[in-house]
Amino acid sequence: MKITRITDKKVSLRRTIDTGTEEQRKIVQSIISTVRSDGDKALFSYTETFDKVSLSSLKVTEEEFTAAYEELDNELVEIIREAAANIRSFHEKQKRESWFSYNDEGTMLGQKITALDAVGVYVPGGTAAYPSSVLMNVIPAQVAGVKRIVITSPPNQQGTLPAGVLVAAKELGIAEIYKVGGAQAIAALAYGTETIAAVDKIMGPGNIFVALAKREVFGIVDIDMIAGPSEIVVLSDETARANEIAADLLSQAEHDKNSSSILVTTSMNQAEEVKLEVEKQVATLPRKEIAKASVDTYGHIYVTDDLETAIAVVNELAPEHLEVLTENPLAILNDLKHAGAIFLGRYSSEPVGDYFAGPNHVLPTNGTARFSSPLNVDDFMKKSSIISYSEKAFTNNYEKIAKLARLEGLEAHARALEERRK
Amino acid sequence: MKITRITDKKVSLRRTIDTGTEEQRKIVQSIISTVRSDGDKALFSYTETFDKVSLSSLKVTEEEFTAAYEELDNELVEIIREAAANIRSFHEKQKRESWFSYNDEGTMLGQKITALDAVGVYVPGGTAAYPSSVLMNVIPAQVAGVKRIVITSPPNQQGTLPAGVLVAAKELGIAEIYKVGGAQAIAALAYGTETIAAVDKIMGPGNIFVALAKREVFGIVDIDMIAGPSEIVVLSDETARANEIAADLLSQAEHDKNSSSILVTTSMNQAEEVKLEVEKQVATLPRKEIAKASVDTYGHIYVTDDLETAIAVVNELAPEHLEVLTENPLAILNDLKHAGAIFLGRYSSEPVGDYFAGPNHVLPTNGTARFSSPLNVDDFMKKSSIISYSEKAFTNNYEKIAKLARLEGLEAHARALEERRK
Repeated sequence: MKITRITDKKVSLRRTIDTGTEEQRKIVQSIISTVRSDGDKALFSYTETFDKVSLSSLKVTEEEFTAAYEELDNELVEIIREAAANIRSFHEKQKRESWFSYNDEGTMLGQKITALDAVGVYVPGGTAAYPSSVLMNVIPAQVAGVKRIVITSPPNQQGTLPAGVLVAAKELGIAEIYKVGGAQAIAALAYGTETIAAVDKIMGPGNIFVALAKREVFGIVDIDMIAGPSEIVVLSDETARANEIAADLLSQAEHDKNSSSILVTTSMNQAEEVKLEVEKQVATLPRKEIAKASVDTYGHIYVTDDLETAIAVVNELAPEHLEVLTENPLAILNDLKHAGAIFLGRYSSEPVGDYFAGPNHVLPTNGTARFSSPLNVDDFMKKSSIISYSEKAFTNNYEKIAKLARLEGLEAHARALEERRK
Repeated sequence: MKITRITDKKVSLRRTIDTGTEEQRKIVQSIISTVRSDGDKALFSYTETFDKVSLSSLKVTEEEFTAAYEELDNELVEIIREAAANIRSFHEKQKRESWFSYNDEGTMLGQKITALDAVGVYVPGGTAAYPSSVLMNVIPAQVAGVKRIVITSPPNQQGTLPAGVLVAAKELGIAEIYKVGGAQAIAALAYGTETIAAVDKIMGPGNIFVALAKREVFGIVDIDMIAGPSEIVVLSDETARANEIAADLLSQAEHDKNSSSILVTTSMNQAEEVKLEVEKQVATLPRKEIAKASVDTYGHIYVTDDLETAIAVVNELAPEHLEVLTENPLAILNDLKHAGAIFLGRYSSEPVGDYFAGPNHVLPTNGTARFSSPLNVDDFMKKSSIISYSEKAFTNNYEKIAKLARLEGLEAHARALEERRK
């Protein structure tokens, strides 16, 4: 890892987002329009082409769930249940109620806050098909009160899905899981087919075709953020342990060659120790090729003269995951402005939050923590404004409102008010 | 207006969203890349091309604000202030605080909720440059605590902006207003130029080029929803007055030829009266051409046998504005599932909410109330998860977490935990 001493906050992990090539966009547009016109038939056909498997039905069957439970050891099922309970408990604290208030004129104003009717969760295929992703996407929707939750995921060449994903879904009581992936899955969720009824919002990460398809259907349905490469930033002073920092950086690096692992520290000694520890630890990892490529390309250690500058650097990076390994993490919490999840102290190693603690692991990546939030219950609820004007309030105010309407050149607005006085 | 008697809820106002032509997309991409490379120079040049005016500086000056106040009558300034106070009061009730909770093992979990640093509000040009839009977009951002709020709007051929817009902005204390519109304004807000520093989120409606530009930069910055055509649905029974219903339908219709004005009523008599009233009232409107085109193309009266069916129809439409003109509007509020703003009773005519009552007039259009909300304070705030695991909680749980990590094939995650036990 490269070590750089810096005295200002001129750093950035913001990379251009991948908006695809013209050719990729055309492919995605064509897939979407084919699914809209041909429905299920298109889904079966694309699954044969892209996933190399010919399915007889899209929906996961009871037999497949049973086989998944047989494959997974019981202790793991228990841990999944405990993680699910922790996640549910944290998200239940986020839930909001509708509210109203009356003023002296008798006017009632408020917000009616209700769950979306139906959402779809896209679970990527291959090694990225994580049971924890099922828990993290589905539970906030359930807490919000969403009645219909659909999962889609590309089938493997045996025509089924990973046992962990199926068990996690079954534990949450999900009835609709469809074996379809790629842009065709997004098209089905947005527009509906004979088998898959349309949803109102689509969640979950995926490859460039999935991301482009989500971008295309945005507006017809809602989508979550378009996920970029994942990152961790560790903020430390001399009190932190180099071996633990290195291990945490590598836990991010093993995800993907495009992941970033960054240390911002006030100690040059520690920086050098961490560099050596990373080299030592990475050599023994099963995913060492991925982890090494990640730290070589996107790994970086920044050394600052003081904690204040280090904090400024962290705010500029706006990381997805931020570990605070300083002497007194809570004392600087207020100064940490942008981060998806903030892990305070040495017992809050990032994997604690990835799986188990309760907060969501779907986090804003690529510097988007400046304006985005971890997945949360609000993402599955919508608001309606409530306006109940009293006769008194109307009488007192309608002439003013009509005047504003006329300033904007909207005569019919003014007359709608005056019509009440006839 | 066409009258249709229906017995089921098979209606829809969902039209395909306009995602532009291939040529329009290319133009927008080229504008964005030119603004990224040439900065202010590109902004001046595009303003000359598209707005037919040569500016010497982009930023609105104090002289322009002074001239705007001279143009507007004082009474209107007072009404703008009163509207601003009402809007502020309603949005202040939405503000949320950060929260934390501890469990028995001493673990602290929570959400840190903070304002975005900087947002940009796009105000469209021409007759759509409404002072009320300035109030509705800026005030929630101020209530959230956003420090930097920027407005951009295309200049008229005199090289300035409408007086109402300038006064509304000045009343709110906005210092940065730039005379630039179109895709070039969106590019400047997303990427920054010498004069306009980049923001984190871009709000506000615009023409197809603005909408496409927002779609392109989504991910680099956040954007609000992409607005479609606007609509009103009036839900009524025989107790409502046909002349008032007709006036309210027309207040929507005068906005735009693409607006929809829909009545869902349980009374055929009333339907016929409203049809006649619309014909009578539209003839005397200054914007009668627009209003007539709108009601002729997208206006519709649905007559149902009972209120229950009428409510089902309304939920299917998921309107932007919903007026409830039934005998007891509050009694059915719980059954009204999807709507941007719900106006209860005859004194809550839509214009009351458009300008003055307090709730936001930036609302989900085109059926997107199924999954979107009125613009609100949450749109200007972001959350960070806080995870502070205690030593005890770590000791009790790390082995379980490591087991989950290994199920997902992520060995470095497991080792990061085990490194703490060395």
